Parts: sequence; structure tokens; C-alpha cells
Amino acid sequence: MSAPVTPSARNVFVPHAFPEKQVDLGEVVLNYAEAGTPDKPALLLLPEQTGSWWSYESAMELLAQHFHVFAVDLRGQGRSTWTPRRYSLDNFGNDLVRFIALAIRRPVVVAGCSSGGVLAAWLSAYAMPGQIRGAFCEDAPFFSSEAAPAHGHGISQGAGPAFELYRDYLGDQWSVGDWAGIVEAARVSPVAAVRKFEFPEQPPQNLKEYDPEWARVFLEGTVGLHSPHDLMLSQVKTPVLITNHEHEPDRETGGFVGALSDLQAEQARAIIRAAGVAVDYQAFPDAAHAMHASEPHRYAAVLTAWVQTLPSVANGPGAEIGDSRTPHN
Amino acid sequence: MSAPVTPSARNVFVPHAFPEKQVDLGEVVLNYAEAGTPDKPALLLLPEQTGSWWSYESAMELLAQHFHVFAVDLRGQGRSTWTPRRYSLDNFGNDLVRFIALAIRRPVVVAGCSSGGVLAAWLSAYAMPGQIRGAFCEDAPFFSSEAAPAHGHGISQGAGPAFELYRDYLGDQWSVGDWAGIVEAARVSPVAAVRKFEFPEQPPQNLKEYDPEWARVFLEGTVGLHSPHDLMLSQVKTPVLITNHEHEPDRETGGFVGALSDLQAEQARAIIRAAGVAVDYQAFPDAAHAMHASEPHRYAAVLTAWVQTLPSVANGPGAEIGDSRTPHN
Repeated sequence: MSAPVTPSARNVFVPHAFPEKQVDLGEVVLNYAEAGTPDKPALLLLPEQTGSWWSYESAMELLAQHFHVFAVDLRGQGRSTWTPRRYSLDNFGNDLVRFIALAIRRPVVVAGCSSGGVLAAWLSAYAMPGQIRGAFCEDAPFFSSEAAPAHGHGISQGAGPAFELYRDYLGDQWSVGDWAGIVEAARVSPVAAVRKFEFPEQPPQNLKEYDPEWARVFLEGTVGLHSPHDLMLSQVKTPVLITNHEHEPDRETGGFVGALSDLQAEQARAIIRAAGVAVDYQAFPDAAHAMHASEPHRYAAVLTAWVQTLPSVANGPGAEIGDSRTPHN
Repeated sequence: MSAPVTPSARNVFVPHAFPEKQVDLGEVVLNYAEAGTPDKPALLLLPEQTGSWWSYESAMELLAQHFHVFAVDLRGQGRSTWTPRRYSLDNFGNDLVRFIALAIRRPVVVAGCSSGGVLAAWLSAYAMPGQIRGAFCEDAPFFSSEAAPAHGHGISQGAGPAFELYRDYLGDQWSVGDWAGIVEAARVSPVAAVRKFEFPEQPPQNLKEYDPEWARVFLEGTVGLHSPHDLMLSQVKTPVLITNHEHEPDRETGGFVGALSDLQAEQARAIIRAAGVAVDYQAFPDAAHAMHASEPHRYAAVLTAWVQTLPSVANGPGAEIGDSRTPHN
């Protein structure tokens, strides 16, 4: 029986440019940072799998001119609670439903990178009525992060080989913690994409803050067992923006380097269109996976321009939870 | 890709003594009935797996003297939305978190039978702060409804053989619907407990309202993959009442007839005690599994007496969602 792990038990943190706050959601205490002011539209930022909220640190400074920004650590990331045996898209997503209800308290645009982008789509499909205005899925691995996807390649041909190393050499909750072992295993990996991973001598700050159980449940396919991407995308209810960044087939091993293939991006768009929902698509074949971190100005410009195309505020009972500082108009 | 199934697409319903209402929770529209008045403490009733809210119909008339009663159909039950590929304890539970936030809007005592009793414990562990005052787990199959439980026998030795018949002869969303086939298969089952099942000539009303995918996901163990009972019980945060009704080992097959064994009830209590939470236990070896339906007076008396031992109202931000008609005192 594994107990949840509180942030105070993991003294690995460093200071950042924005103050951090915590909110008790019931099962987890969620850590987040805020920028901007409540007179601006609300924006919720979701980091990539091995990131914490501060992967958005540079972008937040730019976005704060236009938005009241909330950037979070998901369960198992950063200073938010680690929850052994409890990682699933539905649990990540429902934490955010609660966070919007208890901390943001009005309709919000959500933007997430990678797994965070999958969760942005999850929120568009499954959040409480009126909570979400639109979902920006930044290079999100639709289908390709599933074990048995409806379209295209699965996790085994993508991030799987790297996640296997996290599982075996870091272990759930860093129970193994063999950093020298993972560096050596990556160096001699049969998978070219893994050999190219840059592993410094010591664990980088973002990985120190990351519960490697995430990697295991993605590798095993259990994280999304109850949230198949095809079904989730067929139920999105708000406008969606999908971006697709640098990627290429790994011809040596039959694998795939990048988040999602052109075929998978096209299938995601087709499913959303069939649901009668507006979907925008922008390809950035020269951009890194986490463009928000590598090119914050470009990212902020893409996001801000797209938000200007959205209806002003969603309606619904979920939007009325809390003090709803923005009138419905 | 399976779409959610709306109640209007399944015209199988009959009138009941209490009017039914619906609330949109985002993914599902939840159907429920209300009794009593808002000046009384709030009470949320959760049916057993193959039941709908009206299994509490007789009990509600008695309980309405003491409580503002809300009895619900969970997703996949009654007139609530059926959600193919999306049945899990976490999704059932988070529907209820939203229902409390949007419909009950104040702290509530939750009482559930069988799987509903497991969900009562789930809410005590994982709901938003302050939502739950106490959890009554009526003959709840702790451990015994899991595929690989931490303590005692699992679903294969309990309800598994009956759920196998539901899966094979009724099918997800009644896609097979071979009622004559299930009657015959039960008659010749090698499992005595299944042979004793009373299958009438036509499907009974409660089964017509039930999505048999529930049975499949319990049989396969996926329903609780991310909610192991030992972990869940270690995190309950409110007083709990566990009752244990008629049960006996099936010596012929090595199986078990009933919801949970004495060993499993004892382990559940030990885990809750170790969490520092008050747990009451009452054995009713002569009572049917759904005592609330078979002996509503006895059930109402047990529930009402136990609620009188609870602290008046819980505190926390979750309790403040909505209009919070009851002052915190």
C-alpha cells in the first residue's frame, strides 16, 4: 500500500520568477504559479510530461500582458502531490476540473504541451459545462501516446523506449534512482532517438521534480485505459487548436521521432470536425516539441492570436461555480 | 469509436413514486430523484451495481422525515448517460463530486450499497475538501470486487461467474441481448451460486436499465485499476460505517457467496483505523445484500442512528461551492 507523497518530503526544489501557491483539491495539493491580473481573460497552462509549471516561466512574462495566467504542476510533477498507483488521464483531468472550480473560478482557455495538450483536449470533452472556452494542444501525442491507438503508431514506436529506461533505472517515485545506469543504458540503446537524448552527469532539475511512475503507466498503456483518444476527441465541446512540431520517422528501427505523425494529426482533426466543433491546425516543422519553452515569443504570438478568434465567454453551470468574476456575455 | 448513449435512446423506463430530475455534469447527464426538504441534512444514496435510484424508493419515504434525500443513477444505470469504454471507479466518483457541487451544493452524508458502498468510501477519500460528512458502506465488496485484491478472495471467486454471463449473453450496451441464452447458461452453470440466481422469463426492470459493460469491467478488473481498495481505504477522511450482510463460502467450488468475507471486513476496518479515522461496524448475517430494499425500516433506522453520531457539518473549500444553504457550525 503506497501512500501519497507530499512535496515537503522531496526537498529538490529551486526558486523561480513567479511566487508559487497551493490549493487542496481533496486528494492532491496542487502547486501553481500566477501571472497577470483578473481583469484579463483566464488562461490555464499545462506542462509536458517531464516538466513542471516553470517550463512556461519565459512565456508567462509575455502572456501576462494579455491574460490572467495560471500554470500548474500536475499530480506527479513539481511540488504537487505524487500519487502512486493513481495516475490516469481521468485523474489528471479531474484535478484540473477542481482547480478551475476552486482557484480560477471562471471560464478559462486551456493550453497544454505534449501530455498536457492531450489533457487540454480531455478538458474540452469532459470538464463541467462552461468551464472551458477553448483548448490549445501544443504538439500533443494524440494516438501516439496510447498502447493500442485507433490511428497510426503507438507508444512503443515513440516515447516507449525512453520511458522504459525511466521505469527501469529511475523507478516509481525514484525508488531505483540509478542515474549512472540510465546514462549508460541510453548511450548503448539500440534506438537512435534514445541515444540522442542528452543526459547530463547529474539528473536535471525537471526530472528531479518528476515521478517516473508517469513513464511506466504511459509505457504500459494504463494511463489512458478509460480515455481512448478517438472517443475523447469525438466529444470535445469547444474550439481546438492543434499544432504539430518537428518529427520524422526513424527509418533505422521503424520507430518515430516526435510527438505525432501527419496522419495522426489529420485523423484528430477529422474526428473533431465530425463532432461539429471548430478545429484549427498549424504545422511548425522547425519548432521544438516544447515551443513554449524554446521560443516563448513565437508561442505567445500563436496562442494570443488564436484566442482572439474564440467566443468571449462560455456559458453553463460549471462556469457559475465560485464567484465568477467575469460576467456572462 | 463508441458514442455515449443518451437515456432518450433507451425507451425502457417505468414511472416511480418520486419525480426524476436531470443535471448536466459535462460528460454525463445524471438522473436523480429528491425527497425531503432543504432544512434537513443532505443525504446522497448510491445504488448497487445492477440497480437504479428507485431501489431506494421505499427507504426514501422513511428517510425523507430526517434528510433532504438525493438518490442517483450512476453513469450506466437507469436514465443517466451510458458511457462505453469510460467506466471506472474514478469516473463514477468524480461524477458524484460534480453532482454534489452542482446539485446538492452543501456537505452531505453519502450511503451506498455494494459497488455504491465502495464509491461512498471513494468519496470519503477523494472528494473535494468538505463535501462529505460521512460514508455508509452497505455490504460493500471491499477487496472482493477487485481482480487482484490485497486481502482475501477476488472477483473470480465472487460475482465473477455471474458477470461473465452478463458479458457474454447481454454484452456491452445490450449489444448481444440473448436473454434466453443467459437463462439457460445460468441453469446449467457449474457454480451453485449462479444456478440459484432467479432469472425470470423476461429481463427484469433493473437489468433493462443497466449497461452490462459494468459487469465486464468489474470482471476484467479494469474498473478499479487506478483505485486499489487498500490505498483508497487508507485515505478516507470522514467517519465510515461498514455493514456486512449474509455471506458464506461456497465449499463446492471454493468460491464465495455474498459481498465480503469477515477477514475482508476486518482488514478494511484496520486500514481505516490506521488512518486515524472513526470506523463503525455492524454485522447483519440475516440481512439481504440490498437491505435498503428488502428491509427499508431496518435500513433507515441503522442509517439515521449512525448519522446522529457524526459532527454536524464538515468544513473546507469544497463545501463552499454553490450557495451552501447550511451555515458552517
